[in-house]
Formats: sequence, structure tokens, C-alpha cells
Amino acid sequence: MTVLDNFQPESFVWEQLLSNLALHPFDELVIIDITASEAISYYYPEFAQHGFHLISANKFAGAASSEFYNRVKQSFSDNESYWLYNATVGAGLPIQSSMGMLQHSGDQVTAVSGIFSGTLSWLFQQYNGEIAFSELVEQAWHQGLTEPDPREDLSGKDVQRKLLILSREAGYDMELSDIKLESLVSKALMEFKVDEFLEHCEELDEKILRMFNKAKKQGLVLRYVASFSRKEGAQVGLEFLEPTHPFANLLPCDNIFSINSHWYRHNPLVIQGPGAGRDVTAGAIQSDLFQLCKLFAR
Amino acid sequence: MTVLDNFQPESFVWEQLLSNLALHPFDELVIIDITASEAISYYYPEFAQHGFHLISANKFAGAASSEFYNRVKQSFSDNESYWLYNATVGAGLPIQSSMGMLQHSGDQVTAVSGIFSGTLSWLFQQYNGEIAFSELVEQAWHQGLTEPDPREDLSGKDVQRKLLILSREAGYDMELSDIKLESLVSKALMEFKVDEFLEHCEELDEKILRMFNKAKKQGLVLRYVASFSRKEGAQVGLEFLEPTHPFANLLPCDNIFSINSHWYRHNPLVIQGPGAGRDVTAGAIQSDLFQLCKLFAR
Repeated sequence: MTVLDNFQPESFVWEQLLSNLALHPFDELVIIDITASEAISYYYPEFAQHGFHLISANKFAGAASSEFYNRVKQSFSDNESYWLYNATVGAGLPIQSSMGMLQHSGDQVTAVSGIFSGTLSWLFQQYNGEIAFSELVEQAWHQGLTEPDPREDLSGKDVQRKLLILSREAGYDMELSDIKLESLVSKALMEFKVDEFLEHCEELDEKILRMFNKAKKQGLVLRYVASFSRKEGAQVGLEFLEPTHPFANLLPCDNIFSINSHWYRHNPLVIQGPGAGRDVTAGAIQSDLFQLCKLFAR
Repeated sequence: MTVLDNFQPESFVWEQLLSNLALHPFDELVIIDITASEAISYYYPEFAQHGFHLISANKFAGAASSEFYNRVKQSFSDNESYWLYNATVGAGLPIQSSMGMLQHSGDQVTAVSGIFSGTLSWLFQQYNGEIAFSELVEQAWHQGLTEPDPREDLSGKDVQRKLLILSREAGYDMELSDIKLESLVSKALMEFKVDEFLEHCEELDEKILRMFNKAKKQGLVLRYVASFSRKEGAQVGLEFLEPTHPFANLLPCDNIFSINSHWYRHNPLVIQGPGAGRDVTAGAIQSDLFQLCKLFAR
């Protein structure tokens, strides 16, 4: 604390920063984007044009319009520099590397599904119809389990972005709008400020309770699931699952990913574990950095 | 059939084959060992000395004495050629690559456990105390779910070898004898020929039924589990598990692997899917071949 007490970071203007960086004396320069800033993602093609490499935990470019996404990909390819973004989905879990491995060795991914949000996983695992759903949301928010604005999680938008990134990794040309999204938050609730939203949060409860009871009547459980299949398209929303379904019983904050391909047709390849959090996200960045260094050695 | 009817493969002497191969006109030569032959594994250092690369599905070298295992590793390293063996454990499941990824990016694996045998997984998933265990073994054998000699599976030897390979991958210097092994087959039964064994197979039943009932009394299920932990050592054998335990509910012939590390301390990284079979094993070999080609490009 004492050392940094008088430290005032200089404010910077992007254009100037980038042209200064371009004069770097090193063999390679790697930019690591661990922000969640859409604005920064617009600079990615420029990073590539300067020959910088990029490791990103930021989902915006991967989930952007095809036009921008392809431009970013093309820019890095044209400039022979690399863009790695394993941390964008499932933090350090080997999802993208496994999908890459399958495709590089002649397989084809036909479906991807799972629970891609630790927050929604926790909420539906905890919810038993007795405590109000909104109360659990407040608990999760106070414990720092949600995004600062919990509607980022509850709207399913974050899960939708992750599913788009994975579907593209699987080789399918898709837009965000190709993924049907069931938001848990009404349009009216989306318009409040965060603290106002928390005050009106109990408006969520009725729908969730109704769905929960409907599932329960059929001996099933309620979960918020993402799924893409080549045949049936893509959607993100509430599903009724058997209580023994692999997606139904996760440890708190775990993600689970299920991949089908020609080789994994009957039994999927399933990867499960903590998909968010400081350690595992930092691990994912480190792992990308290691992969990058291996590529430099060529 | 008709084309091959008159085909008689020329018998070969290894030494001669190897010295002939050494005259190959290619940039690189890759040997793919998809046998289960211990004899062939003894030639691995020689493959390396000739500068050949090796992809193996054969577990013998990876589970050999430290002395031989290290000699193989050293030979490939000294000759700047590569030995890849992802197919030895879990076929195409990304187990070894995930463990490598963790360690390369600064993590340390502290424990590995799971169900490493599709056959034993199937047998204990099916067994309900009503049909005799030996009858299930015969069913599995007739369906080709077991090794030609089902004692390879039932003795736990195959699982023990896989656990040794993984523990070594995790950076621990171990011998096969460091892994406690609980065989389901008595010494007397091991001495029979295969068909004689199948006749006497019901001698297995008493112990399994006793253990099954003991587990059932406690509300638990019986599974054949492999586990290594830095603190508690390594063993392979029968365990009682909660019915909701991730190892308790697998699809037929699935393997499951659970990895703990500093980053995955509370919730493990779990990988599950078919861990044997033609497609996924061929896939693992293909994937190793792709990795190798990437290394050649350096």
C-alpha cells in the first residue's frame, strides 16, 4: 500500500499508446486483454496490424457480428500474429483445445451443450421452491457470485455469447441472433439501475416458481441450459432435466460442457469443473501464453 | 477376403527391419505402435536412436520400471525425436494434454482419480446383486467388452498401469509397486487357461456379493476406482461411493478422470467419455500425429 500510495497512473489515449507500443524493442509483443470492455475489442484488428499478439478473456470480439469477428480473425492471419482466447469460455477448462484437437484430427463436432454460467448453475442448484428465487439472487450478489449487475447473468446474454464462441470454434458460421435466448429478466426490469433492479427483483419469482413446480410434477429438475446442435439449431434457456442427468448435479459454481462428434456420437465427451474465478482464469491466460511461446519457437 | 486369400506377410527380423528403415528417404519417420506387445516396447530406445518418432497406444513402456521408462524418455530427448502416447490412457479424451497444460502454465497436479476401465465400469454399473457377477463377466466377454482374457481387466493390472502413466505425467517419480492393487481374481484363478477360467469364474461371486451388500446397507454403491494423491499415495480397488458421486453414474463403457491441482483444489477438473473403442483410439492416434506435424513445422 505505502509504495503505491502516491502512484497516479498516467491517463492514455489509445492511438498514441498503440503507436508508441509499435516502437517496442522486443522480438514479440503480446497484449493481454482481461477487461470486459466492448470498446477495447474494436482495437483488435489494429493490434494485429501492428504485429502484436493478443490473448483475451474478453468475449466481445468472439461474439461480435460475423463481419467483425471474421475481420479480427483475418487481420491476425494476414499479419502472421496470433489471437488466443481460451479464457473466454470455461476459464481454464480445456474446452476450446479439445474441440480444436478433435477437428485437427479429422473429427467433426455436431453438438455442444451444457451449463456455461457458474452463477445460474448455483442459483438453480440451490432453488427448492421454498426460498424466493429473488432472495437467492440477492444472496449470490452479496457474496460476489454474480456480475456487478446480476442481470448480465440472469438475462442469459453471457451464456449466449459463450455458446456463439463455441459454435464458431466448432466450425459453424453463426450470428448471436441465430441463438434463441430465453431471458429470466423482463424488458421492464432491464431498464432499471442496478440498485432499483434489486428492489424489484421479486418480479422474477412468479415465473421461476411456476416452472419449478411444473418440472417437479414430472419428477424433473429446472436448469438453465445452453445447447447447439447442427440439426436442431441453438438455444439458451430453462429446461426440465432428469434428476440423474449429468447437468443436474454440479458442485457450486461448476460449469459443464458436453461435446458430440462423429467419434463421440453415442457417449459425449464431457468436461466439468470451475469455469470462472480468479485462479482458473489466470491459469487459462498463463496456458495461452505458454502455447504462444511454443508457437514463437517455430 | 478374396484379394487377401493368398497373401502371406513376410516374416521379419526386427534388427533387419530397423536398419532397413534407417535408410528411409523422408524428412521424418514416425512409428505407430498400436500393439499391446511388451516385446515391442523394448525397442523404443532403439527407435529413438535411429531418429524415428513414436506414437504409441501400447502401455508397456509408460508403465515399465522407472529405469526403463526414464531411459526411453532420455533416448528420445537425446535424439531430438518425439514420443507421444495420449492413446495409452482414456483413448482420445484430453487427459494427458490437460495435465500438461496445467503444469506448463504454473499449476501443480496434486491428485488424480477416476474409473479408468470401461469394462469394470460396465460390470459394476450393471451389477445389482441378483444376477451373478460371473454371469455378467461372461456376457461382457461374449459381447467383446472385455480383453480376450477378461482377467486382464478383472485383475486391475490394466487400471494400475494407467494410473502409473498418469502419476508420472503429473510429475511424480513412481513404480508400479507403489500402487496398491486389489485384484478381483484370486491367484488360483490366474493360473487357468482362459476357457478354464471362464468355467471357474463363479468363484468371483462370493466376495463381490458380500462387498455389494455391505455397501448397500450403508446406502452406497460399489465401484472399482483408481486414485493417486500426493498426500495419500496410490491405490486401485473396490470403493464404496455415494449414489450421487460423479463416479457412480456413467454411461456404458465411459471412463471418468478427476484432476486436483492448486487451481482445481475445491472442485476438480473432470473429464468423462468413452475411453476405449476403435473410433476414439484411432482419433487419439490421429491427434498425436497432428501434434507431431505441428512440432515438425518448427
